[in-house]
Amino acid sequence: MMKLETITIGQQGNANPLELRLFHFEGHKSDQSAFIQANVHGAEIQGNAVIYHILVTLKANPDIVRGNITLLPQANPLAAITKMGTWTLGRFNSVTGDNWNRLYKDIFANQSLDQFAKKDFDKEQFKAYLEKAIDQKLFALKEYGENENAFLNLHLQKIAARADYVLDLHTGPIACDYLYVAEYLTEKSKDLNFPHHLIIPNEFGMAMDEASFMPWVHLKKALENSGKTYDIPFESYTLELGSEEVINTKLALKQAAKIMHYLLKREIISENPLEEHLILETPKACLLSDYKTYYAPKGGLVEYHAKPGQEVKKGEILFSILSFEDPERLLEEHKAKKDCLIINHTTSGNIRKGMELYQVMENYQ
Amino acid sequence: MMKLETITIGQQGNANPLELRLFHFEGHKSDQSAFIQANVHGAEIQGNAVIYHILVTLKANPDIVRGNITLLPQANPLAAITKMGTWTLGRFNSVTGDNWNRLYKDIFANQSLDQFAKKDFDKEQFKAYLEKAIDQKLFALKEYGENENAFLNLHLQKIAARADYVLDLHTGPIACDYLYVAEYLTEKSKDLNFPHHLIIPNEFGMAMDEASFMPWVHLKKALENSGKTYDIPFESYTLELGSEEVINTKLALKQAAKIMHYLLKREIISENPLEEHLILETPKACLLSDYKTYYAPKGGLVEYHAKPGQEVKKGEILFSILSFEDPERLLEEHKAKKDCLIINHTTSGNIRKGMELYQVMENYQ
Amino acid sequence: MMKLETITIGQQGNANPLELRLFHFEGHKSDQSAFIQANVHGAEIQGNAVIYHILVTLKANPDIVRGNITLLPQANPLAAITKMGTWTLGRFNSVTGDNWNRLYKDIFANQSLDQFAKKDFDKEQFKAYLEKAIDQKLFALKEYGENENAFLNLHLQKIAARADYVLDLHTGPIACDYLYVAEYLTEKSKDLNFPHHLIIPNEFGMAMDEASFMPWVHLKKALENSGKTYDIPFESYTLELGSEEVINTKLALKQAAKIMHYLLKREIISENPLEEHLILETPKACLLSDYKTYYAPKGGLVEYHAKPGQEVKKGEILFSILSFEDPERLLEEHKAKKDCLIINHTTSGNIRKGMELYQVMENYQ
Amino acid sequence: MMKLETITIGQQGNANPLELRLFHFEGHKSDQSAFIQANVHGAEIQGNAVIYHILVTLKANPDIVRGNITLLPQANPLAAITKMGTWTLGRFNSVTGDNWNRLYKDIFANQSLDQFAKKDFDKEQFKAYLEKAIDQKLFALKEYGENENAFLNLHLQKIAARADYVLDLHTGPIACDYLYVAEYLTEKSKDLNFPHHLIIPNEFGMAMDEASFMPWVHLKKALENSGKTYDIPFESYTLELGSEEVINTKLALKQAAKIMHYLLKREIISENPLEEHLILETPKACLLSDYKTYYAPKGGLVEYHAKPGQEVKKGEILFSILSFEDPERLLEEHKAKKDCLIINHTTSGNIRKGMELYQVMENYQ
Repeated sequence: MMKLETITIGQQGNANPLELRLFHFEGHKSDQSAFIQANVHGAEIQGNAVIYHILVTLKANPDIVRGNITLLPQANPLAAITKMGTWTLGRFNSVTGDNWNRLYKDIFANQSLDQFAKKDFDKEQFKAYLEKAIDQKLFALKEYGENENAFLNLHLQKIAARADYVLDLHTGPIACDYLYVAEYLTEKSKDLNFPHHLIIPNEFGMAMDEASFMPWVHLKKALENSGKTYDIPFESYTLELGSEEVINTKLALKQAAKIMHYLLKREIISENPLEEHLILETPKACLLSDYKTYYAPKGGLVEYHAKPGQEVKKGEILFSILSFEDPERLLEEHKAKKDCLIINHTTSGNIRKGMELYQVMENYQ
Repeated sequence: MMKLETITIGQQGNANPLELRLFHFEGHKSDQSAFIQANVHGAEIQGNAVIYHILVTLKANPDIVRGNITLLPQANPLAAITKMGTWTLGRFNSVTGDNWNRLYKDIFANQSLDQFAKKDFDKEQFKAYLEKAIDQKLFALKEYGENENAFLNLHLQKIAARADYVLDLHTGPIACDYLYVAEYLTEKSKDLNFPHHLIIPNEFGMAMDEASFMPWVHLKKALENSGKTYDIPFESYTLELGSEEVINTKLALKQAAKIMHYLLKREIISENPLEEHLILETPKACLLSDYKTYYAPKGGLVEYHAKPGQEVKKGEILFSILSFEDPERLLEEHKAKKDCLIINHTTSGNIRKGMELYQVMENYQ
Repeated sequence: MMKLETITIGQQGNANPLELRLFHFEGHKSDQSAFIQANVHGAEIQGNAVIYHILVTLKANPDIVRGNITLLPQANPLAAITKMGTWTLGRFNSVTGDNWNRLYKDIFANQSLDQFAKKDFDKEQFKAYLEKAIDQKLFALKEYGENENAFLNLHLQKIAARADYVLDLHTGPIACDYLYVAEYLTEKSKDLNFPHHLIIPNEFGMAMDEASFMPWVHLKKALENSGKTYDIPFESYTLELGSEEVINTKLALKQAAKIMHYLLKREIISENPLEEHLILETPKACLLSDYKTYYAPKGGLVEYHAKPGQEVKKGEILFSILSFEDPERLLEEHKAKKDCLIINHTTSGNIRKGMELYQVMENYQ
Repeated sequence: MMKLETITIGQQGNANPLELRLFHFEGHKSDQSAFIQANVHGAEIQGNAVIYHILVTLKANPDIVRGNITLLPQANPLAAITKMGTWTLGRFNSVTGDNWNRLYKDIFANQSLDQFAKKDFDKEQFKAYLEKAIDQKLFALKEYGENENAFLNLHLQKIAARADYVLDLHTGPIACDYLYVAEYLTEKSKDLNFPHHLIIPNEFGMAMDEASFMPWVHLKKALENSGKTYDIPFESYTLELGSEEVINTKLALKQAAKIMHYLLKREIISENPLEEHLILETPKACLLSDYKTYYAPKGGLVEYHAKPGQEVKKGEILFSILSFEDPERLLEEHKAKKDCLIINHTTSGNIRKGMELYQVMENYQ
């Protein structure tokens, strides 16, 4: 019942291919469908271990599949293979510097949906309309050769356009689990049982989650222009699954249990065989404007005292900086400016002035 | 009369400094001032050789200086020192991937100038108002530590804010000389005597030239909102001075002669001692929308048959691709899709599918 | 009593300096001297935290200093500042690829010590003779310009040549504490109280420890050629202090206590104020030929099940590899080939076929 | 008659393959065979264009093939695909820093050939003996997983071991054509008609040419130990074909004509269809000890005044350095220390103190 589809998405200068592997599960008891991709950033590999558990579970339990599920581990071959030193340098295209999760398109940004919105339509018709618009953009790329950045990301968007639920699996640098949630999904997102939520505006910021929900946001506006109300039936999220460069299959089992639970809630599967690994959580959430970044006040060697997931009070020590510039002031402690919850910190302890150190939630609930 | 100002703009993890050197020339016969920086991208070094000639000429001829001139060679220490293999990897921050010439801010993007525009003001007052707005942004950075990307670029913008004419010296990859010209400067730009002009909208695209003229564009709109007409007295340009990684002092002398000629036209100097090296040119120009990029249709080894500055007819060979994938089709020739003028091509002959090959002007005049 | 010496060791293309900071403590009650450097590899920063504790302790207790102690944290500016992505790419020169700890010279490799050995001499005379030989090599570099690789490393060797005890502080990738010990130092090395010893031959492998002891090994041979026996009074070690990219000041305190204890044993200090933090250890040791590297048998995502410091029996699981190439064989477990003790594993979980995974001790005692 | 063989030589972390393409031509009129590989360093691509011409010529003229010819363009997939910025970073393994042309093995370094040399043997038997020794090393790699550096290079050595003539096609940075010639090949090498020869000792320096001839050098020594004289029938060379990152098919035609001429001289082909493109040359040669490198005396922007292939007299200007450190000394000229012939210079104009600038031949004839 599982189908493996291999797509050649690029070609190296020596003609070696860059290939994607898509795993499709088709159910015929529901029209709901999900797309789950992982590892668009090369070092963010934990999502692959989560997909591994989902894949194995679905293969072993074919009868539970009601709708369609497409799994895409290692979604960005070029990012996955770009290694510098012992680490994976796959956050941006090493030739252009472009961040792989900022290369998606707002498909209807310059195309009015007012005409479309005036007609009667169902969800599948809008998805087909969207897919056609993406196909036109893919076709337009051909004229002068297909820009590799645009090409990969549009392809991923096209796959996502067929789904009703899109989950993009990332990780932070050294991080706890957290979720990017569009404002309009504040309630529905709770079904994912993530411990920390960052509430982002219903706007385009070039990432996959936004690129996926923006067509529906535009549609809602067009309908409202015609005086209709509309409750967006589509959901997309960025899931941050811990730290870079690490896979941990035990942890992945718990994370997979949450995603399977979500698929169950959305009636794409009829049962969650991983239920025993499910941990229900009430999220702590803050607005993106309350998501703060601490930057290094000077160059030096940074010791990170606060750990991801930890709550820190104003005035408590966050980090210290060791510098040999001034022998009278070798080690300096730096404190939290406000009460906060640590979401992640940078991977390196060797830091220039002005590099990111911590990202924290303030005014969270 | 020349003043050297050294600014520490950053600090490495081992406390070694990142420093800028600014060279100031002050004239008291004019209120016109110019700011010329080079090498914001690490590999684009030819502008430094141009600044060298201007600096030497001004030092040797102090009496010609009427207004203020600030020269900033090697404007981006971090970019200049980032080397990978034998080349300079300084187009983007090697930690974040951010392109150094896409990190400037549109200072008045979210701040209405309507109030300011209602008052009587002169140019110097607006420049002071702008500088104060930049200072506020710099101050705001301090709260959680100064993000290194924002910090450098805001500093450069602050220096630029004091000038009436801002020249940002870049190069292409393997390229001829060309100039980015804002629409409102189509006429005035001819004083720079560049052979090729790309006409860009009066809009913000995150580069230095745009960041410098946008406050004035916002001001003009605010004045028009009040029913006044306004001719923007400010000019800024990006000058592309040939190819990456090369300095050529003979060529730089001709390029410096053009800039000195421009300063003479703007009454910042009273005479151009490099006049004998000046070559007057009538530019070929096209709109940015007619500036086309050819991408590699497949992976392979690319031979660039057309050279920067060359005019190519539709159907003539632009490049060929050598690939050993299919022994029956080793070498493929690729032709121009339309008549065009070659502006630049990529530095490498080892190319993935979808990488940039050529940038060309179409429909130019 | 502490003297800070700043040395400019290099210069960037934009004239920004590369600087070393040396901290000297001079005692006049002993002719024994130690040189301790850290961070020759850019990402191996924990040694700096150890030096911090030693420095602070010596400053606070000037009376305990009997001999000379030179501390050099962040000994390689160029390595320290080379960052790619969020990590430090400082294991090798990013231009040439040369590993910074394989660039030292075997000073007397091509110079017979037979003549020198025939004369009466004391230790200080040999050290002076060695330093002079290094100076000649430094001088010879000047003829065609000083190769940056040779220049830095010869300078460090020159500083080391003045000492009787040289400690080069490194770290592994993700690692426990371990020590490289020359065969002739098998007994004496126990004073460092390191838990794991790798016994290396008394030969030159281009690293600092070897470069430092080789002159003495050559001297011993020359003396033996003259029929004399000789017990090398010089010691040098490479200390591996845990994992890359991390500083941990608490752990560093324990590591510093061991080094201070060693300095006490060598009568360079008269007392160890960090004694309370000292943990005495009986080392497990193996020969370098029993130090084995496991390489990835295929490309994939690697989960490291065994941890540094852990003893693993033959047949127990070391690591597993997740690959989506064959859906029937997604996750493969790989077992220890022999009983072993885990010393370190690679930092990344995203692995090509043939990359290093683990380094382990076999046949250790 | 041509056979294409595809070998999977590696696998990325996402299971994408690294593949070689070998082109075999078999003639049955001679037992002489040649192996020609190109592009072991990722940016050194011109050899591929040379192989293209040879391949096309042999395909079009199958009757001229007398012996065996194996062509391997793009011989190092991992190097070819490692790009940083717009350039190819393929001189060294980006994870380990190891230079790809310093990873070959001296197969018989620790294995006496005295026994073998005592028996009667012909050339083919020694080649088979050598190949078996390589196979044993490849087999030994399997025990703990095949180290990717050793694995690729041993494979290339194994292919080379079957040939009588091995040509390894490289390029310099910005360079003229030159040839590395083992001392014992000083005369025979003239058949390659290269303009510049660097005479290297009959010793192992870890490159392909040396790794290929060393077994024969060891054999000669073993035979001499038995009192026999031996004229090594084997030849291997490193050919440097101009500059990095460029393919030029016209130039490649002339270079291919020389190699075809060499194959004709060695009776591997019966005719050279490219004879019309052949340029006969009398080489200028020097010893490796007279091959000098100029290093940057300070950091700055370097203008290269002397061009590859050019003869420069002592005291003539080689390069100048532009630095803004000292306004009184902006541009410094640097002169040749001795009469020399320029072989290559570095690709970048942005230079740290101590980086390579020029490589030149002195005392050449």
